Amino acid sequence: MNARPAALARLGVLGGMGPLATADFLVKLIQATPAASDQEHMPVIVHNVPQVPDRSAAFLAGSDAPWPHLLDGLRTLEAAGCSAIAIPCNTAHVWHRRLAQETALPVLHIGEAALRALAYRYPEARRVGVLATAATLKARIYHEQLSARGIEAIEPGDDLQTTHVAAGIAAVKAGRIDEARAWLSHAATHLIARGADALLLACTEIPVALSGVALNAVDPTEALARACVDWWLAARSESAQLETQT
Amino acid sequence: MNARPAALARLGVLGGMGPLATADFLVKLIQATPAASDQEHMPVIVHNVPQVPDRSAAFLAGSDAPWPHLLDGLRTLEAAGCSAIAIPCNTAHVWHRRLAQETALPVLHIGEAALRALAYRYPEARRVGVLATAATLKARIYHEQLSARGIEAIEPGDDLQTTHVAAGIAAVKAGRIDEARAWLSHAATHLIARGADALLLACTEIPVALSGVALNAVDPTEALARACVDWWLAARSESAQLETQT
Repeated sequence: MNARPAALARLGVLGGMGPLATADFLVKLIQATPAASDQEHMPVIVHNVPQVPDRSAAFLAGSDAPWPHLLDGLRTLEAAGCSAIAIPCNTAHVWHRRLAQETALPVLHIGEAALRALAYRYPEARRVGVLATAATLKARIYHEQLSARGIEAIEPGDDLQTTHVAAGIAAVKAGRIDEARAWLSHAATHLIARGADALLLACTEIPVALSGVALNAVDPTEALARACVDWWLAARSESAQLETQT
Repeated sequence: MNARPAALARLGVLGGMGPLATADFLVKLIQATPAASDQEHMPVIVHNVPQVPDRSAAFLAGSDAPWPHLLDGLRTLEAAGCSAIAIPCNTAHVWHRRLAQETALPVLHIGEAALRALAYRYPEARRVGVLATAATLKARIYHEQLSARGIEAIEPGDDLQTTHVAAGIAAVKAGRIDEARAWLSHAATHLIARGADALLLACTEIPVALSGVALNAVDPTEALARACVDWWLAARSESAQLETQT
């Protein structure tokens, strides 16, 4: 392939929410890419700027505080020559539609990628436990599509959401992974005991902590990474065909 | 602290050499940052574009092929508002001086950071094994400074360099971490048997594979991450003082 590197499609990652989740996404992107050398990997620009105000707190308070930060990140990635955008933060998808309207670039959706993975890996699942921030649950980022597929979403109750899920997510953001694993494993076990036949780890901090814990679980971070690789391989192949024709 | 996020100093990472080494650097940056929430972490823009031609092969062939790619990455990071540059690739430091001359931003040097860590952690070391690409060895990126400190550099011979060190680095770039660990552990053991009282893991792929292997070793990726955190904490504190004064 003689495509000049500058001509290769670049992925823009609107990240930093949180930074460890963004690093986890990059590793999953690399693992999902068929490549035997550096040069065969995907070019990626990462806007890893974690000063975006807490997405869950803002949404629950009816605040739009994250928006100017998200828009600034989008503009930086456009200016850096990116051809598609991925956001490794489930809660930030509250603002997905507005971001998509602000740009001509495709903005991949983590929830759609995760639900495709769920349908592929657990086609028989009828009750799916959703581990996520309170805002992701309240904004029904996953619920509508689960419901459209005839799947019941099982949530932790308000108490467990605060004492275990939110506490576990905050612990990952503070770098206390072992503590996070204890909180989140307990919440996962609770959802399974209530009849969940699969789980969605629908906050990008959660798979960081539950990596290696045996669960019937879909990791939306990994699903988004695979969707990005699919996008990139198609874009690269299109660009190679165009070069051959000219 | 009332500093607007946009006013915070941003680190620019000239990465992708290789992509997994860049992700490893980001994780070490996060681990080295004192932060209890997303917002307390360092803002970072990552130019993770792995199409830069192989640095070691180019240097050994007398080719300047990586240069336009490095310069393009530098310009992208400048345009994205970065205030300092870090390059998580030892061999790319062959071009460090030229990059530093092209920009008004400080370009942190991985070798200087690693030698400070060596002096701090192994002050008695007199013979240091250097695991690196053939170009890093030939360009004497570490040798001059080791020699200035009265430390002898021990290199693998040409054979072992090819069969074990280069093979191990290539295996990391292809995602075959277990295979890389076997090759690189053997090379490390060989240098210790020849009298090395400490090792420099002086190619950013090497610590990815040797993570968790018990060795008296300095990880330049981690040393560069700590140097970046020191730079950022100082820049943040200066900016906060300026805000107080105005």
